[in-house]
Amino acid sequence: MPSAAGRGQGQDRRPENEDSSAADDYAKERYGVSSMIQSQEKPDRVLVRIKDLTVEKADEEVWVRGRIHTSRAKGKQCFLVLRQQQFNIQALVAVGQHASKQMVKFAANITKESIVDIEGVVRKAHQKIGGCTQQDVELHVQRIYVISSAEPRLPLQLDDAVRPEVEGEEDGRATVNQDTRLDNRIIDLRTSTSQAIFCLQSGICQLFRETLIRKGFVEIQTPKIISAASEGGANVFTVSYFKTSAYLAQSPQLYKQMCICADFEKVFCVGPVFRAEDSNTHRHLTEFVGLDIEMAFNYHYHEVVDEIADTLVQIFKGLQERFQTEIQTVSKQFPCEPFKFLEPTLRLEYQEGVAMLREAGVEMGDEEDLSTPNEKLLGRLVKEKYDTDFYILDKYPLAVRPFYTMPDPANPKTSNSYDMFMRGEEILSGAQRIHDPQLLTERAKHHGIDLEKIKAYIDSFRFGAPPHAGGGIGLERVTMLYLGLHNVRQTSMFPRDPKRLTP
Amino acid sequence: MPSAAGRGQGQDRRPENEDSSAADDYAKERYGVSSMIQSQEKPDRVLVRIKDLTVEKADEEVWVRGRIHTSRAKGKQCFLVLRQQQFNIQALVAVGQHASKQMVKFAANITKESIVDIEGVVRKAHQKIGGCTQQDVELHVQRIYVISSAEPRLPLQLDDAVRPEVEGEEDGRATVNQDTRLDNRIIDLRTSTSQAIFCLQSGICQLFRETLIRKGFVEIQTPKIISAASEGGANVFTVSYFKTSAYLAQSPQLYKQMCICADFEKVFCVGPVFRAEDSNTHRHLTEFVGLDIEMAFNYHYHEVVDEIADTLVQIFKGLQERFQTEIQTVSKQFPCEPFKFLEPTLRLEYQEGVAMLREAGVEMGDEEDLSTPNEKLLGRLVKEKYDTDFYILDKYPLAVRPFYTMPDPANPKTSNSYDMFMRGEEILSGAQRIHDPQLLTERAKHHGIDLEKIKAYIDSFRFGAPPHAGGGIGLERVTMLYLGLHNVRQTSMFPRDPKRLTP
Repeated sequence: MPSAAGRGQGQDRRPENEDSSAADDYAKERYGVSSMIQSQEKPDRVLVRIKDLTVEKADEEVWVRGRIHTSRAKGKQCFLVLRQQQFNIQALVAVGQHASKQMVKFAANITKESIVDIEGVVRKAHQKIGGCTQQDVELHVQRIYVISSAEPRLPLQLDDAVRPEVEGEEDGRATVNQDTRLDNRIIDLRTSTSQAIFCLQSGICQLFRETLIRKGFVEIQTPKIISAASEGGANVFTVSYFKTSAYLAQSPQLYKQMCICADFEKVFCVGPVFRAEDSNTHRHLTEFVGLDIEMAFNYHYHEVVDEIADTLVQIFKGLQERFQTEIQTVSKQFPCEPFKFLEPTLRLEYQEGVAMLREAGVEMGDEEDLSTPNEKLLGRLVKEKYDTDFYILDKYPLAVRPFYTMPDPANPKTSNSYDMFMRGEEILSGAQRIHDPQLLTERAKHHGIDLEKIKAYIDSFRFGAPPHAGGGIGLERVTMLYLGLHNVRQTSMFPRDPKRLTP
Repeated sequence: MPSAAGRGQGQDRRPENEDSSAADDYAKERYGVSSMIQSQEKPDRVLVRIKDLTVEKADEEVWVRGRIHTSRAKGKQCFLVLRQQQFNIQALVAVGQHASKQMVKFAANITKESIVDIEGVVRKAHQKIGGCTQQDVELHVQRIYVISSAEPRLPLQLDDAVRPEVEGEEDGRATVNQDTRLDNRIIDLRTSTSQAIFCLQSGICQLFRETLIRKGFVEIQTPKIISAASEGGANVFTVSYFKTSAYLAQSPQLYKQMCICADFEKVFCVGPVFRAEDSNTHRHLTEFVGLDIEMAFNYHYHEVVDEIADTLVQIFKGLQERFQTEIQTVSKQFPCEPFKFLEPTLRLEYQEGVAMLREAGVEMGDEEDLSTPNEKLLGRLVKEKYDTDFYILDKYPLAVRPFYTMPDPANPKTSNSYDMFMRGEEILSGAQRIHDPQLLTERAKHHGIDLEKIKAYIDSFRFGAPPHAGGGIGLERVTMLYLGLHNVRQTSMFPRDPKRLTP
């Protein structure tokens, strides 16, 4: 601490419009607006985390930095709620030995969302403090300095932003619509719900990689700027590249496969994937994060399917174990049933799925792809029958899959391909890929693809290629569906869709 | 195994142009070209890893899948070197009980780089087998089936591709130039050197994230398609975005800072960064992988500098501990001194660096930026004086840093900014950022930046922003400099530069 009085650096700007002269104010050193922190000093002050303020710390004097979440002046007292990420505590500034009436007024006038440093004594609360995460203690403020002021008019209120929609509708209380949230994302991301969603999403990435590294996979980095549109040129963004033009990769698949041809055997990558689709749905983004896997196998692509399914199961388990607080926090605003899964994962064949749908009254052909409503219906039927929110649909009709999909040798209308579903929505699409240049050429021709454009791709398999399979997972969808949310924009920090490029 | 004879699936295609009739060949079931693996069967055959073939396995019968690395026929014998990633073993097919002369001929004719399944008995070698990683054993082949054939003419020879340049020059033996390597990247990536480089690079990413997660950081995903060029619009790629146009992010910085303003406190991200610079140097790419960090601090930006430096130190240590084999492998082709670093990391002030350069005869002004040659010279001087390949240069002149850099309150010509260097080359640039909208506006004006274009950026700081600092690390540079390589294209799997967009 820089001085015996315990003042932080540069706490010398007096609040303006003070109604009493400084001379009258016995607490004048104990509050104020700190000058901007420019790393003037290195005080050895310890700032305690709000989540660590519990009854064990009762009667200790601590320094805390937090945001003013709410503020309520009441006679000679001012009650503040001080927030730090998902945690908050009540702080009391009361006229007395440490605080003058000017200081209480100063505290009461600090704008919501401003960041303050507070020195205070932790006191056991006489009764549980509702609405705070730290319910058993409060902070008796001895000093308060504003570190960074928020403008008085906030574009949205955090309390409105975490209110469950039902409550808003029933009680006529304000909620915040999606565009207002996204337009003011830095405020919206401060809510306990947003904090929890994105901490959990960070966990998904970590669990994905942890599991695969343990299984002997290698992480690769694939280029996003590519010279040729990989799958025929539809839905691809064009980039000006010096004197020529290029494209943004719609998937890392070609590069994952090249790594397999280059003997890396088991690879994964995490990175942006770009789709120039003009789809304005709850689950489409023009830029999303792909969790991609590709793996050489010995004799059967189910070796790969099992590894991918197990990786997802390890993610689900890890989330249950490590992110229970976050799951609970999100469910307060968006209630939903806990995510259920089986071990080993349920694998149904496509025709079994079709049979279940037909039994439920759906009319569809054997080689017809699943529509979104049928996907969701099948998810409900599977849940009823098998009690799982996660399953694999295997052996899709060859006709509805890309040209590089390996046909099923036992049935020419079927392919060695699969999708995986969470709560009835697709989160992964994958297949055994054709590793033989001759068959690949035949299949490309059958699909009417210009061979010249995919020459480099086909040539990758001319120097010995192991049989391999893989798939790509959409990160935002996994987060959304695991938490039972309803829009992928809730699980993308800064979503991109055909109508949104900002912030 | 599908049958008592131990045949794999579909090994029924006889080699063509066979010079003896099948009837004469007592080994005819024991070799051939396997039909394409389309997941016809799930044999319970175990394929043993080549690296696990040691004297402990002597006299065991095993199945192995590998590539034909080299092949040498000699009378009634054929010596194969079978390769699997960085490991290889000698395999012998000899006329006798298990192999006919037709089978030996078949084996001898398998093209290099083809993938084969071999059943054989592990035998202790009479003498060390030079040139193989498994020096103490060889494999006596009983069955051999081609799983995937390579075309006979390879665009480059793996042995040439791993030959040290010195050896090539001195002995007049072939080496492979960079463009040939990159044009045929899937073959070049199969070399032991490439395998080692990219396994180590995967390790760098893993260590980076492991360390930061342990330090309480959250991983974020930032958009790559952005609506406005962040730093004035130079060197930015343009993307067609539906009916409008957009840009590719030159750095995730704005988004990292928004996350700090949104209370995530400590964030990192790993992802592609795009620079439309027409620089054709050994260390510039138009697309590279950024390891980015941003962190709110309490009172001094050195809190952040220390965390970043420690993260790099943890990476260096982790590589030493976990990737010694890879380091050794690379050094066989590219010899270099082991990477040295200090704990805690050496931090010099910019003016100290300038003084060292002047002492060495360099003429430069106090506010002049370091040229690349001076950077390298300073690296050598620091190595001589402090015996470290890694150090921090702190407090750069304000004039040479971007507008959002926090000025040093103690010296108006200096700033709270820093670069970090490995073997005399910059790998990270960072700074305390201005978190006050008023000062940020002033500094932007001073730099002549159009305020309208950065309005959203400045507005991010209007609702309370903690002091914060960060930096971005170039992954390919870290890999290159740690291993003492000389071109960043060696450490990018599929590099992009102004002249290269493929493969």
